[in-house]
Amino acid sequence: MKAYRIRAGAGIGALESFERASAPLSGDQVRVRVRAVSLNYRDLMVAGGSYPVPSDAPLVPGSDAVGEIVEIGPQVGRWKVGDRVATSFFPHWHDGAPTPHATRDAFGGGAEGVLSEELVTGERSLFAVPAHLSDAEAATLTCAGVTAWNALFVESRLAPGASVLLLGTGGVSIWGLQLAKAAGLQAFVTSSSDDKLVRAKALGADATINYRSQPEWQRDVLELTGGRGVDAVLEVGGKGTLQRSIDAATMGGTIAVIGGVSGFAGEFDPFSVIAGAKRLAGIYVGSRTMGEDLSRFVGVNKIVPAVDRVFAFDQANEAYAYLRDGAHFGKVVIAV
Amino acid sequence: MKAYRIRAGAGIGALESFERASAPLSGDQVRVRVRAVSLNYRDLMVAGGSYPVPSDAPLVPGSDAVGEIVEIGPQVGRWKVGDRVATSFFPHWHDGAPTPHATRDAFGGGAEGVLSEELVTGERSLFAVPAHLSDAEAATLTCAGVTAWNALFVESRLAPGASVLLLGTGGVSIWGLQLAKAAGLQAFVTSSSDDKLVRAKALGADATINYRSQPEWQRDVLELTGGRGVDAVLEVGGKGTLQRSIDAATMGGTIAVIGGVSGFAGEFDPFSVIAGAKRLAGIYVGSRTMGEDLSRFVGVNKIVPAVDRVFAFDQANEAYAYLRDGAHFGKVVIAV
Amino acid sequence: MKAYRIRAGAGIGALESFERASAPLSGDQVRVRVRAVSLNYRDLMVAGGSYPVPSDAPLVPGSDAVGEIVEIGPQVGRWKVGDRVATSFFPHWHDGAPTPHATRDAFGGGAEGVLSEELVTGERSLFAVPAHLSDAEAATLTCAGVTAWNALFVESRLAPGASVLLLGTGGVSIWGLQLAKAAGLQAFVTSSSDDKLVRAKALGADATINYRSQPEWQRDVLELTGGRGVDAVLEVGGKGTLQRSIDAATMGGTIAVIGGVSGFAGEFDPFSVIAGAKRLAGIYVGSRTMGEDLSRFVGVNKIVPAVDRVFAFDQANEAYAYLRDGAHFGKVVIAV
Amino acid sequence: MKAYRIRAGAGIGALESFERASAPLSGDQVRVRVRAVSLNYRDLMVAGGSYPVPSDAPLVPGSDAVGEIVEIGPQVGRWKVGDRVATSFFPHWHDGAPTPHATRDAFGGGAEGVLSEELVTGERSLFAVPAHLSDAEAATLTCAGVTAWNALFVESRLAPGASVLLLGTGGVSIWGLQLAKAAGLQAFVTSSSDDKLVRAKALGADATINYRSQPEWQRDVLELTGGRGVDAVLEVGGKGTLQRSIDAATMGGTIAVIGGVSGFAGEFDPFSVIAGAKRLAGIYVGSRTMGEDLSRFVGVNKIVPAVDRVFAFDQANEAYAYLRDGAHFGKVVIAV
Repeated sequence: MKAYRIRAGAGIGALESFERASAPLSGDQVRVRVRAVSLNYRDLMVAGGSYPVPSDAPLVPGSDAVGEIVEIGPQVGRWKVGDRVATSFFPHWHDGAPTPHATRDAFGGGAEGVLSEELVTGERSLFAVPAHLSDAEAATLTCAGVTAWNALFVESRLAPGASVLLLGTGGVSIWGLQLAKAAGLQAFVTSSSDDKLVRAKALGADATINYRSQPEWQRDVLELTGGRGVDAVLEVGGKGTLQRSIDAATMGGTIAVIGGVSGFAGEFDPFSVIAGAKRLAGIYVGSRTMGEDLSRFVGVNKIVPAVDRVFAFDQANEAYAYLRDGAHFGKVVIAV
Repeated sequence: MKAYRIRAGAGIGALESFERASAPLSGDQVRVRVRAVSLNYRDLMVAGGSYPVPSDAPLVPGSDAVGEIVEIGPQVGRWKVGDRVATSFFPHWHDGAPTPHATRDAFGGGAEGVLSEELVTGERSLFAVPAHLSDAEAATLTCAGVTAWNALFVESRLAPGASVLLLGTGGVSIWGLQLAKAAGLQAFVTSSSDDKLVRAKALGADATINYRSQPEWQRDVLELTGGRGVDAVLEVGGKGTLQRSIDAATMGGTIAVIGGVSGFAGEFDPFSVIAGAKRLAGIYVGSRTMGEDLSRFVGVNKIVPAVDRVFAFDQANEAYAYLRDGAHFGKVVIAV
Repeated sequence: MKAYRIRAGAGIGALESFERASAPLSGDQVRVRVRAVSLNYRDLMVAGGSYPVPSDAPLVPGSDAVGEIVEIGPQVGRWKVGDRVATSFFPHWHDGAPTPHATRDAFGGGAEGVLSEELVTGERSLFAVPAHLSDAEAATLTCAGVTAWNALFVESRLAPGASVLLLGTGGVSIWGLQLAKAAGLQAFVTSSSDDKLVRAKALGADATINYRSQPEWQRDVLELTGGRGVDAVLEVGGKGTLQRSIDAATMGGTIAVIGGVSGFAGEFDPFSVIAGAKRLAGIYVGSRTMGEDLSRFVGVNKIVPAVDRVFAFDQANEAYAYLRDGAHFGKVVIAV
Repeated sequence: MKAYRIRAGAGIGALESFERASAPLSGDQVRVRVRAVSLNYRDLMVAGGSYPVPSDAPLVPGSDAVGEIVEIGPQVGRWKVGDRVATSFFPHWHDGAPTPHATRDAFGGGAEGVLSEELVTGERSLFAVPAHLSDAEAATLTCAGVTAWNALFVESRLAPGASVLLLGTGGVSIWGLQLAKAAGLQAFVTSSSDDKLVRAKALGADATINYRSQPEWQRDVLELTGGRGVDAVLEVGGKGTLQRSIDAATMGGTIAVIGGVSGFAGEFDPFSVIAGAKRLAGIYVGSRTMGEDLSRFVGVNKIVPAVDRVFAFDQANEAYAYLRDGAHFGKVVIAV
């Protein structure tokens, strides 16, 4: 059985495939034949050394996998052989509010990752995926999809008709756009590329803003909303976007603080938060139940997530480099 | 200026038009030139005497009006002449939770109704309507639209992808269907008419059930949901539907108790509610803020409410009779 | 090792002790040396045959146990030997909303009960109990305590200062009273016994009502609340109380439907629920997380639950009879 | 009739009394004979020029008043002569979520203030106060009391038994402490004065921390909570406290950003917010409904707010100076 491994901090060039033995199954575990793995910015951070991992030893990277269950442990009750499933980012955060115990490890970080032909995990760390999605499409649910779901519908509790601002066209933002439109929200998208904004429009964006030609883009958001501002912002930006995101939000609005984990500075004007009764809310992916809820929503509405490009299993290094170069629109996936 | 009046309990035949003088405006009041009035089952109840009203004197009936503001009082700050507005069912329930004080009167009941060429009311008892709707369409927001909104998104707090059961094809149910589909929910509709079920399908219903041929329709709902049941039921039924609605709901689901105010018996098996952790929730239309939120949602998604038929102002008696006969699909409206 | 068993429906006289072997431990299980078991009305129902159980074979009854962990399986991470724990009513409902899967069995019903010197169960079906409580006191958290917590703070989400009506002085009602007062709520208690009402006063009840001398007690509740009604009712009553409970609630209030599983008729006036925007909410005990939250609250506020009487392990039959006779105030417990 | 006025930015020495005529009443207005005014840090900010006000003209300062209604306008329905009331900080934010329209002005800022023998205002900008409070005590509800209520029970939705950290012993923090303890929460208080910490203990604080001797006080909070951190922090601190407050909060916890409007820097480590799924929530006092809810809670639990000192009406300048010097514990009040 083949898998990839990398030493955290060694750089994406250090990613290498290796041969390893299949692990035995214990009581409530299942064996998954992995079919597709979706990459996240966090995988680049692991490679680059800016994401905390528990050890210096090489690790199998990757959190987002879709595959088929090929063997089940004697106490498994949730699955049968042949079921198609996705990994839940945190194997132990099943339901309810996050706790340190529930989020103590994540695939491809504290727990062994999924960039591997096979995966052995507890039956409760998986959720079923919609039948209309290809493996590559379904592999994008785990991290980007659940993060966007959590931000929009769990933390921000947006009602239909509310408005949301998506920064850029990376995986979380495009998932956010697709979820927002299928749920009857109003969605605005920013990008530095007019081409990408055209594609965002095609996915349903109500309006788009080129932040290069409109560096004071928060004013455009206010104008587009009749001076009101948006109900939520998915803040995945780099340095310098946080205060603009706060200013682009309506009174009582939520700024979901998602990404730029190491890349953006957390500086803001407290008065703008107080007098606006605004909320900055950290989003740490989500629970398996959120994955299930997302999956149901995607299935009911036949949402097809935007996959930018699918690489072959032996092109994992190219896939990492492609993600790093940032020219993608939606998700980058590796077929296994 | 012409208006209609009726003595509560006198029967719909007693509805008659009369001439009356325009009322003067005080501080925060506005004068509305009414353009369309939508009827509700409640208007039949007033006529029939099964809805409580404060006096025996003839009253101007009707709660749902759309019109244009033609004059404003000296302290009015929310509107200007020319604005197009709808009435909020309870003139004094503006925001927040319902209270006896806020719901102390309603248009066409405790407060003077809207089946009139002109309406004088406080500026805070109105909300703006979406530009893409005709007057007749917009007139259906006030009662049926807000009731469906409250049931689905305020009381039941349904997340996108959740499922809802609509009983029949009256005004609230069809509004519920249209709102549900625009918000990415799964929607099931029952009717005794296959023709109406075809029309419900055309409006997006995921599945339909003819309750005449399927008298144990709650079983069909369970089957359609993989045994799970729906997350919410809009219970507008007559006698004999309540327990079926409870049985059709999933564990933790909500049965929004809306209609059949006098017409259905409130009998249920307590064990089914306890062991199902289910909720029976009375829905009493809603606040003006709910009207505003609904209106925004309808505008963002360009929802066009189903209007069955529009009668002329001098055909108000025919409109009442048509509603009473129950052959409609969606709303019955009177142009003014 | 000794335990009790009973055939469902055989009557409380059929309860008998028997000797049995200790069960072996598997991966994530723990062995608990039971110290105290608290009885519930539901245990009488099992004995009487009015509570659904999966089989005709004699079962070990009882859901509420406190004990000490004496052995842990190799994969146990939450507990160590010596920890004092209570059972969670549903061994598989850990967190989040209830589901049929999570509530598929309960101790003393679908799952083996706790009236036994020893208990073997999964590590996630237990929660820690506050240090200041005796074993007998702590044993009352599992069912009555969690039910009252769920009704007051999860389902009804009562804010401090809100008011609640407790019907009678059984286990859930007295737990509800004690929780309400420690959380700064206003609490009213009914009983047919003036003696019990005096004791309720001593536990902090703001006012009490003898429902024998005041058969229209809902009017007393309205009077006590300035005509407003209470924010929540813990409806554990027998036939004939439901409508009074609805009438005693304020607009928008919640009637938590808890008990009288077989004993009360679910009949109500729909108009009172609609025009009152009231909520009837089935309460099915609660999750382990609710047990943990309750336990923390009890610990912070040093609440001492009302235990009416503690029977010795060989007096289990007397304990059942005592509970059946209904003269208790608070909980009936068996020391093991 | 006497009142005080001050030019914003002129410094507290510029506060001066003046004589003015009584204003006439219009439709829904009431005249209040002011009995007590409580000061807030915001009043110092107005005097010092760091709080935005609409004009350069001298203004009547102060937002928190208690008094007796001495005259009512012809359309007043909520009050009668003789009622004792408090001002709601925002005269137009009655209920529901905050909006720019509802918070467009506040007493002593955009709207005329209350440091005056008489006050004329709309009937909906007042709420009733508990009978057991003196005028001076009741005058502290408006701003500090409602802010603490909003932070604890509206924004943070703390359940009984949850824990809260109060920074310092100013008005909001001491209100927060008293509300927390009456609601069954666990409360921790910091101060640089051991004397004040002794007084906080006497008001029920579960533990206290001297931040001068313990400059890494966030670690003490973690230790006091078994490593878990608190569920909420009322962040009223100056520079340098925000990150410590974030670190002192538990996973999923809320940092209510309240004060130091101009005085603290909004800098934080985004990773700590994301991986902690924490929430920074701006608190802008609150609505009249929150005032009513607070008032009910204070009444039910007979909470007596901590008033540090009451000055006579002609000692307003001394009262301002006393507040500025920061030696107070609880609130500073002027009797009128």
